Amino acid sequence: MKKGKVYLVGAGPGDPGLLTLKGKELLEQAEVVIYDYLANEEFLDFAPPEAERIYVGKKGGDHTMSQEEINALLVEKGRDHFVVRLKGGDPFVFGRGGEEAQVLVAAGIPFQVVPGVTAAIAAPAYAGIPLSHRDYAASMAFITGHERGDKAESKIAWDKLATGIGTLVFFMGVKNLPEICKNLIAHGRSEETPVAVIRWGTTPEQQTVIGTLRDIAEKVVQANLKPPAITVVGDVVRLRDELNWFEGRPLFGRRIVVTRAREQASEFKTILAELGAHCIEFPTIAIEPPPSWEPLDTAVNHLPTYDWVIFTSVNGANFFWQRLKERGKGHIFPPSLKVCGEERSWL
Amino acid sequence: MKKGKVYLVGAGPGDPGLLTLKGKELLEQAEVVIYDYLANEEFLDFAPPEAERIYVGKKGGDHTMSQEEINALLVEKGRDHFVVRLKGGDPFVFGRGGEEAQVLVAAGIPFQVVPGVTAAIAAPAYAGIPLSHRDYAASMAFITGHERGDKAESKIAWDKLATGIGTLVFFMGVKNLPEICKNLIAHGRSEETPVAVIRWGTTPEQQTVIGTLRDIAEKVVQANLKPPAITVVGDVVRLRDELNWFEGRPLFGRRIVVTRAREQASEFKTILAELGAHCIEFPTIAIEPPPSWEPLDTAVNHLPTYDWVIFTSVNGANFFWQRLKERGKGHIFPPSLKVCGEERSWL
Repeated sequence: MKKGKVYLVGAGPGDPGLLTLKGKELLEQAEVVIYDYLANEEFLDFAPPEAERIYVGKKGGDHTMSQEEINALLVEKGRDHFVVRLKGGDPFVFGRGGEEAQVLVAAGIPFQVVPGVTAAIAAPAYAGIPLSHRDYAASMAFITGHERGDKAESKIAWDKLATGIGTLVFFMGVKNLPEICKNLIAHGRSEETPVAVIRWGTTPEQQTVIGTLRDIAEKVVQANLKPPAITVVGDVVRLRDELNWFEGRPLFGRRIVVTRAREQASEFKTILAELGAHCIEFPTIAIEPPPSWEPLDTAVNHLPTYDWVIFTSVNGANFFWQRLKERGKGHIFPPSLKVCGEERSWL
Repeated sequence: MKKGKVYLVGAGPGDPGLLTLKGKELLEQAEVVIYDYLANEEFLDFAPPEAERIYVGKKGGDHTMSQEEINALLVEKGRDHFVVRLKGGDPFVFGRGGEEAQVLVAAGIPFQVVPGVTAAIAAPAYAGIPLSHRDYAASMAFITGHERGDKAESKIAWDKLATGIGTLVFFMGVKNLPEICKNLIAHGRSEETPVAVIRWGTTPEQQTVIGTLRDIAEKVVQANLKPPAITVVGDVVRLRDELNWFEGRPLFGRRIVVTRAREQASEFKTILAELGAHCIEFPTIAIEPPPSWEPLDTAVNHLPTYDWVIFTSVNGANFFWQRLKERGKGHIFPPSLKVCGEERSWL
């Protein structure tokens, strides 16, 4: 019987460029991909078309599958398949990857972990906020609000957290924000401490609201900021004024539909994306050979009678050279013939 | 004048597979790579051969270049070059990336940040330790010991840190370990709290020492564990007993010299590396055509007179088929001829 294996892979925070090389390689080999709610489903395109894709989505409190069902599925598929368990961010940072690994060990199924870039670090970085800075913070903490349902009370030690750590990053719903701020202020953190709430961090949809412990909850309501989002509390948030490189790009926040033919959209998309645009590929044209080669063949047969060949597009040039080549060695391009066209036509 | 740009790129913790896709793409385009002391110099191979590589190494306290000199270099090169500033782990987690970004902004040089997988998360993951687990920890903190030289006293709030956070990860020298343990115990953390010290995390040289707050400092001395290392404190360390997947692989800790010809070493290396081996490519043979084709050509000329062709190696088979092809269509392989060899010979 074929032996299975499960890879617990972190997909990173959303920007597909922040997936690891190993994560991509494993996706390319996957027979089964079991994935959570991801900020970006482009990752799934790395898996072979025939790979089974199973969504076990967790979006806030809305669980498509219970953790017990996910565990059972991992064991079932992992017995004799090459399984990639794809999780947002890092599998071992509030991702319940530890529990899933334990279940696999108990079932005798080999597993490996491929850490990912966590949103706790990357979303602030894209919002222009380094979590550490020698002028502001030499420690950082990540805190989640999702605890066991059977715990009656919050186990967060607000009295210590409030002033014990430089930068605090909360993986909690926007709805917890008033509670977080109230607790931190009550336990001694200045109400002027700057706070950033970042939604869809590292994606073209990224949205950041800035305030202080005193007013951020209200500002988030005003901005109508919806979950999922992470919250950064600490003086490092001030650095955003200087370092806001991502949202500050000229095309940030714009959605641009790229209507070029699919083969040619990629380069154009790369340039636009670098400038901050969110590109949607929607090819409205396709580049195809002409219905008949006859007019071109006739012209080619009389090439020496022309003074100029003028190319009006890269595509026209490509097809021309290809046809000339296909027609065989008899059809040489006369050296006396002058050529006009974009430099790229010569590629 | 050509416009420059600086990318602050996180190289991740050491395993080259944990570099991000974006990090690799940028390295491939780099004109200048300015890099710190890295756990793995393989990353530099992604840069074009002609790219300038500048080591500004920081290894513990031993700074090849001061931060001021590094800043000046970034500005100088960044003015008119495509610069990748490659830093271990993540550039904004105790990497002084924030300061470097500020210097670039002040000089009017565009920059972008490419977050990386931090060793604080990945080294424990490779040691079988998830930093969070709903049975053990819903919060984690990263703490560095490297502060401004002008701060007279440690700013670490031991009284709050000791019991305010589930999992603590220290980016500090092994020599600080007695101090860390003493402070945590003095401020109320149980001296039975498990501790892991991980050296060279995520690399084939990874070494982990396990103990408790009471005895870890002594155990690290006994194991002769040298810096750089990170220290994980918290109940999640117990999970290593179950989840130690990386160091538990059959060839972990072995160095294997792969003497195959370079073209063929890669596949073999991948298999060995998956089993945990640290492979060193050292080709002692090269596969080349024979000094004369005459004996083979003579045999090929008389192929129909043979009953069997026996291939003794993949290389022999490759050269045979290639030669047959080169000799042209006149030399067809007779269908009656029987062939013996590994299945792979037919590739």
